[in-house]
Amino acid sequence: MNEQQHAGRADYRAWFAYHPRVDLETNMEKAPTYAWIASSDRNDTVRAAISVLAEGIGAMFGETPWVSALATDPDGETGKRSVGPNAADGANGADSGILVGTFAANERLREIFGVEAAELGREGFAIRTKEGVTAIGAHTPVGALYGAFHLLRLLATGADPSGHEVFERPANKLRMINQWDNIDGSIERGYAGPSIFYRDDAIDFEPARIRDYARLLASVGLNAIAINNVNVHRLESRFVTEDYLPRLAELAAIFRVYGIKLLLSVNFAAPIEVGGLPTADPLDEAVQQWWHERAAAIYEAIPDFCGFLVKADSENRPGPFTYGRGHAEGANMLADALGRHGGLVVWRCFVYNCKQDWRDRKTDRARAAYDHFMPLDGAFRDNVVLQIKNGPMDFQAREPVSPLLGAMERTNQVVEFQITQEYTGQQRHLCYLVPQWKTVLDFETHALGGAAPVKRIADGSVHGRTLGGFAAVSNIGADPNWTGHPLAQANLYGYGRLAWNPELSAEAIAEEWALQTFGANRRVADAVVGMLMESPDIYESYTAPLGVGWMVNPNHHYGPNVDGYEYDKWGTYHFADRDGVGVDRTVRSGTGYAGQYRGSNANMYESLADCPDELLLFFHHVPYGHRLKSGRTVIQHIYDTHFDGAQRAGELAQRWASLEGLVAADVYDEALARFREQAEHAKEWRDRINTYFYRKSGVPDEQGRTIY
Amino acid sequence: MNEQQHAGRADYRAWFAYHPRVDLETNMEKAPTYAWIASSDRNDTVRAAISVLAEGIGAMFGETPWVSALATDPDGETGKRSVGPNAADGANGADSGILVGTFAANERLREIFGVEAAELGREGFAIRTKEGVTAIGAHTPVGALYGAFHLLRLLATGADPSGHEVFERPANKLRMINQWDNIDGSIERGYAGPSIFYRDDAIDFEPARIRDYARLLASVGLNAIAINNVNVHRLESRFVTEDYLPRLAELAAIFRVYGIKLLLSVNFAAPIEVGGLPTADPLDEAVQQWWHERAAAIYEAIPDFCGFLVKADSENRPGPFTYGRGHAEGANMLADALGRHGGLVVWRCFVYNCKQDWRDRKTDRARAAYDHFMPLDGAFRDNVVLQIKNGPMDFQAREPVSPLLGAMERTNQVVEFQITQEYTGQQRHLCYLVPQWKTVLDFETHALGGAAPVKRIADGSVHGRTLGGFAAVSNIGADPNWTGHPLAQANLYGYGRLAWNPELSAEAIAEEWALQTFGANRRVADAVVGMLMESPDIYESYTAPLGVGWMVNPNHHYGPNVDGYEYDKWGTYHFADRDGVGVDRTVRSGTGYAGQYRGSNANMYESLADCPDELLLFFHHVPYGHRLKSGRTVIQHIYDTHFDGAQRAGELAQRWASLEGLVAADVYDEALARFREQAEHAKEWRDRINTYFYRKSGVPDEQGRTIY
Repeated sequence: MNEQQHAGRADYRAWFAYHPRVDLETNMEKAPTYAWIASSDRNDTVRAAISVLAEGIGAMFGETPWVSALATDPDGETGKRSVGPNAADGANGADSGILVGTFAANERLREIFGVEAAELGREGFAIRTKEGVTAIGAHTPVGALYGAFHLLRLLATGADPSGHEVFERPANKLRMINQWDNIDGSIERGYAGPSIFYRDDAIDFEPARIRDYARLLASVGLNAIAINNVNVHRLESRFVTEDYLPRLAELAAIFRVYGIKLLLSVNFAAPIEVGGLPTADPLDEAVQQWWHERAAAIYEAIPDFCGFLVKADSENRPGPFTYGRGHAEGANMLADALGRHGGLVVWRCFVYNCKQDWRDRKTDRARAAYDHFMPLDGAFRDNVVLQIKNGPMDFQAREPVSPLLGAMERTNQVVEFQITQEYTGQQRHLCYLVPQWKTVLDFETHALGGAAPVKRIADGSVHGRTLGGFAAVSNIGADPNWTGHPLAQANLYGYGRLAWNPELSAEAIAEEWALQTFGANRRVADAVVGMLMESPDIYESYTAPLGVGWMVNPNHHYGPNVDGYEYDKWGTYHFADRDGVGVDRTVRSGTGYAGQYRGSNANMYESLADCPDELLLFFHHVPYGHRLKSGRTVIQHIYDTHFDGAQRAGELAQRWASLEGLVAADVYDEALARFREQAEHAKEWRDRINTYFYRKSGVPDEQGRTIY
Repeated sequence: MNEQQHAGRADYRAWFAYHPRVDLETNMEKAPTYAWIASSDRNDTVRAAISVLAEGIGAMFGETPWVSALATDPDGETGKRSVGPNAADGANGADSGILVGTFAANERLREIFGVEAAELGREGFAIRTKEGVTAIGAHTPVGALYGAFHLLRLLATGADPSGHEVFERPANKLRMINQWDNIDGSIERGYAGPSIFYRDDAIDFEPARIRDYARLLASVGLNAIAINNVNVHRLESRFVTEDYLPRLAELAAIFRVYGIKLLLSVNFAAPIEVGGLPTADPLDEAVQQWWHERAAAIYEAIPDFCGFLVKADSENRPGPFTYGRGHAEGANMLADALGRHGGLVVWRCFVYNCKQDWRDRKTDRARAAYDHFMPLDGAFRDNVVLQIKNGPMDFQAREPVSPLLGAMERTNQVVEFQITQEYTGQQRHLCYLVPQWKTVLDFETHALGGAAPVKRIADGSVHGRTLGGFAAVSNIGADPNWTGHPLAQANLYGYGRLAWNPELSAEAIAEEWALQTFGANRRVADAVVGMLMESPDIYESYTAPLGVGWMVNPNHHYGPNVDGYEYDKWGTYHFADRDGVGVDRTVRSGTGYAGQYRGSNANMYESLADCPDELLLFFHHVPYGHRLKSGRTVIQHIYDTHFDGAQRAGELAQRWASLEGLVAADVYDEALARFREQAEHAKEWRDRINTYFYRKSGVPDEQGRTIY
C-alpha cells in the first residue's frame, strides 16, 4: 500500500483488506501451516509474490511467515528471521510453509507437480499442499505471482488452509486495461479523481501508487496496460519520442515486476505532427521509416513493450482514410514497424460517422463497425488485433452484442468493455457490470456454425487464432479509494477475473470480491452480493427503456435527457413520436442492421415476435400499445419499470445503511453518500422519462401514479 | 483609432468611417465652411471634441480644418497652422469655421445662443450656424463633445453643411453600459472575442483601445460603464481594494475625457471574502464600516466614481437574504456608504428561484421580480436605482414587458436591455434589437392611470423621479470589428441613440448607422436598413414560436433544443405535450402572472381572445388546433413561420452578397461568413422545431413540406 498518502485507509486497500481469519482463531493449526515462505527464484516478480504472501498471511493469520533469506534481497532483511537453505526446499522440520517459484529454479516444485505442470502454459500456475508444504509452481515468475495472489484469494474467501489443489491458466492471452488518461492530469470519462500517471502536462507519478495499482491489476491477472488516452492529444503524440520514453520506461519497470506490459496509444498523424513529415500516408516510405525508427527507440527504452493502441478515423481522430488508404493498410504499416521487436498493434473498430444528419434515417451507427471491417477479414498482419466494442453503438447499459464479434474468421480480435461507468451512473450510481459482460461473453454468435460464444471468439479458440483476449477502459483515478464509489472496485476486480476465466459467474465474482474486501461476515457479504447483483437491473429500470439507449445529457453523459441526442450528429436516436418509439433496424423495413447477425440471431432480431423484450426498441419502432412478452404494453412497461427502479434505488441506500459498523467507516461513508445521490437521481430519471412519454403518448398510468 | 493594432481597418472604425462627401465634390462651399476649429475651453474633453471634429471633417471634406492654438495643447501642434486669438471668437475674416465649447468659457457662444441655452441641462448642447460660424455650445465640456459628435453625425448622414440649428438634451440621466467581462479575460455572454479590459487574471488593457471604445460610447451619448461582470468572482471581489484601485483609476481617467463614469460590480459578500469579517449582514456595524472605508478609498482614487452595480440573491450570488435581510436593507447599506461621496447603488431586480423543480407548475419565474420588489416600493434610498430587465424572464427574442416597470411609484428605476445577443443569435445571426427595445419603450404601463409608457417610466417623468435611465449589457470584445458580426455594431449604436432619445424610430437609427458606416451610397444604405429592420422578425420566425421562449441549448444558449430547459431547474418551460403547448399564466387557472399588469393590460393578457398572437404561448396553454387572430392554427403557424423564417434567413446572405464591392472588404467578408452560417443554422432551427412539434402533435403540414 501507498502508506505515505493513504496509510491505513480501508478504501485504498480495496480487495487487499486481509481481514483476520476469525473462524480460525481457536484453531492452532493456522500458525504452523504458513510459518515460512521460500523460493530459489531470484527476481523481482517472485520477490513480489513472497512479499504479498507475507503481508496477506500475516494480516489474516496474525503471524507473518519467516521469509527464507534466499528468497529475499541479498541483505535478507525482508523476513523476520532467516531460515536456512533447507527451508527453500520446504524441509525445515516440523513447521509448515510455502514454497513459491518457477519450476526451473526450484527442484522441489518440479518434484511436487511433475508432469502435471506441462499444461500450465506461460502464465498458469499450480497450487498443491503436500507434506506440510503449500507449493505454488509456475513456468514463469509471473505465473508464480498469480499463484500467490490466488492462494491469498482462497484464504481471504474462507478456504481451509490445510490443503489446496489448484491448476489454473488464463483463458485469454491479452488481458488489457486501457487508461483514458491525459497528460494534463484529466481522465476522459474518469469519475474517480485525476490521473495517477500525469499532472500539469507532464508524466508525473508517485512510484508507490503505480506499484499499488500494478498489484491490484496483477492480483486479478491483468497483463497489459495502455497508458494514455486513445484520443491522443498534442503532447501525448510525442510519447514515442526520446522526450518522454525515459519516464515511460520508469513506468514500464514498475509494471514489469507485476507481469504487466505497456502499450501506448498513438496518433496516426504523428509523422506529421511530431516527425515534421508532409504526410502520414501509411504507404509512404518516409512515414514507414519514421515509425520504424520510433519503434526501435521504444524497444531500446522498453524491451518488453507490448505495442500500440490506435483509434484511427474515428470521432475526428486522424487515420489512413485521409490518404485514401484503408484500416488494414494503416494497421499493417504500424504492425511492420513493431513486429520485428515482437510488438502488437491493437486497432480499435469504433469507427462510425460522428457527423450524421439526424434527418437521415438510413445511416445507422450500429452498422458501422461491421460495415467498415468485415470486408477486411484476412487483410491484417498476424500481429494486429482488432479491438471490438461489446455493443455496436457504445457502452450503453443495454445493447445487443456487436455482430462483428466472431464474424471475422481470419482476424485477431479482442472484445472491449468499459469498466468506467460512462453511461452506467458514473460511479455515483451502483452498477455492477459483470452480469452485462457475462451476457456478452455467453452470447452465441453462430460463427462457424455454432458453439461459438463470444468468450470463445475472444480467446481465439473458435477460429484458431493465437492472439486474442479482452480490453477494457479503466475506472480508477487518484481518489484514495481508486474508483470514486467504493463498490465500483468490484467492476475492476470482476473484469480481471473474467479476463482470466470467463466461466466464473457474476455472483461468484461478487462474493469473492465482497469477502476479500469486507471480511468473512456473511451478513455483509450477502448484503453486498445482493446489492451488486440487482444493481444493473435497477439502473436499467429507471433509465432508457427496452434497449433504446442514450437519453442522457450530451457531452458528460450523466443524468436523464430524453432528447439530449435526438437532433444531434452522433447517430443516437430513439425516434419517439406521439404514436411510438424505437429504431427500425430490420432488413425488411429498417436499416438492415439485424441482417449483420448470423443464423438464428438475425431472424430473432428481425422478428417483432421473437426479439427479446429488453432489446425491442433497439431493433423495432413500435406503438406505445405494443404488447411485450411480459404481457405489458410498452408504455406501461416504461411507467412500471421506472417507478419500480427508482423505488429499488432508494432501497439500496437503506440496505447499505443497515451495514453501519460492519464495514470500514471510510468505505461506509463514501458509499452511503453515493447511494443517497443515486436514490435522489433515480427519481429524477423516473419523472423525466415517465413525463416525457406521458406527454407524448397521452396514455395514463394504469395505476394512476404521479406523472408530471 | 487604435492605429497600432487595427490600422486602416474599416470594421474597427465602425460608424466613424467618415466617407468622403462625394455629393459635395463639385461644390466649393465645403472648404471654407469648416476651415478652422476654435475654443476657449482648456480641458481634455473639449480637446477631444476638437480632435474628432478635425478628423471627421478632414476625412469627409478632404481638408482638415486648422485648429486654433488656444484650442490645443500649449505647444500648438495639433493644427496645421496656428490662427490668432480672433479665430477663437470666430472672427477670422472670410473663412468659416467651428466654434465649440462651454458657454462659461466662450463669450461668443453665449452671444450666439443667448437665453436659449437655459434649457439644455448639464449634458445637452446646441448647434447653430450663424455668420459663417458653426457654433456648438453647451454648459459642460461633455455637452460640447456630444454636440461635436452630433454635428459629425449630421454631416456623415448627408446634412447640408451650410446651416444647422439643433437643440438636444438627453431624455435619460443614466445611460449605462454593463460589461460582463471577467478578469481572466473571458466575457460572460460575449461573442466578439476576449475582453479589452482584462487578461490572465489581471487588469490589462491597451489605453488606445479603451479610448477608442470610450469614443464609440460617447458618440452616441452613453455616460456610465460598469466595468466588470455582475457575477463577481474571487479576484474581482477585490476591485474595491487598493490592490486594484490604481489600475481602475487609470481606466476611469480614459473614460472621464469622454464623459463616462465608472461603476463597479461588487460582491455583496466582499466583507467576508475580502475584508475577513465573519458576516456580510448589512445591519452589522463592522460591515457598514468596511463598506464606508472601501467607498472612501474608491473616491480617493476615482473622485467622480459613479457607483456600485449589484446582483444580489440572484442565481447563486450572495445577498442580504443570507442574513435574514431584504433587498432594501442590502441596497441602502451600500447607498449610505456611497451617498456621502455622491455615488449610486444600481441594484438588479433579476431575482428568482433558479433551483425550481420542473415538476412544480405553481412557481413562475416571470412573477419573481415583481413579487420580490413591489412590496419594497418606497423603501430604497434616493441614491438607489433598481435595474429592471425589460422582459420578466430574461432576454428572449419575445417576451412581454416586465410588469415591474412603472409599478413602483416611489423607487428609482432603469430599464435593462441586452445588446449582446445571448438569445438572439450570438452575433452569428443578424438580429437588430432596436425594434424590440422600441416596443418595450412605447409599451403603455397604465401607471398612474395612463400616458405612462416605459420610456417615461425610465426617464423618471411619470413618477417625478430625478434618477432613471437605461442600462444594457455590452456586445463588444477584442475582435477587430468590436462586435463579431459587423452589423451587430448597429445594436450598440442604436442602444446609445435610444438612451439619448427614445423617440427616434428604429428605422431612422438604422439609416443613421448605415450611412455613417457605409457611406452615402443609397443602394447600400437601403439594403442594410431593410435587412436590419426585417432581421428580428426573421430570427423570431425560425426560433421559439409565439412568445414561448427558450428552446435553446442549455448553458451556452446557442442553437435549437426544444426540451433543453424543459426538465431543468431554471423555471423556463413550455409544457408541450401531444395536445398543446404554452404556459398558463392567467389569474383564472394559471400562475396569476397576468394579474401583475395594470388596467387593460391585465385583461388583455388574461383573455385568450385578446392576448396578442406573438405572446399567446407566454400567457396561455392552448391546443395545437387553436386558431390565432391570423386565422391559422397554432401548429400551422409554427410550420409556416419556420419554413418562411429559414427561407428569409437564406435570402439575407444573398442580399448581402449583392453589396460586394460596395462595402469595405473586411466588413463584407466577415458579414458574409456569418450570413452563411445563419442560413444553415436557420434550417437546423426550422427542422428541429417543426419535427419536434410534428412528432408530438401528429398534425401534418397543410402544404406537405418536408418535416422529419
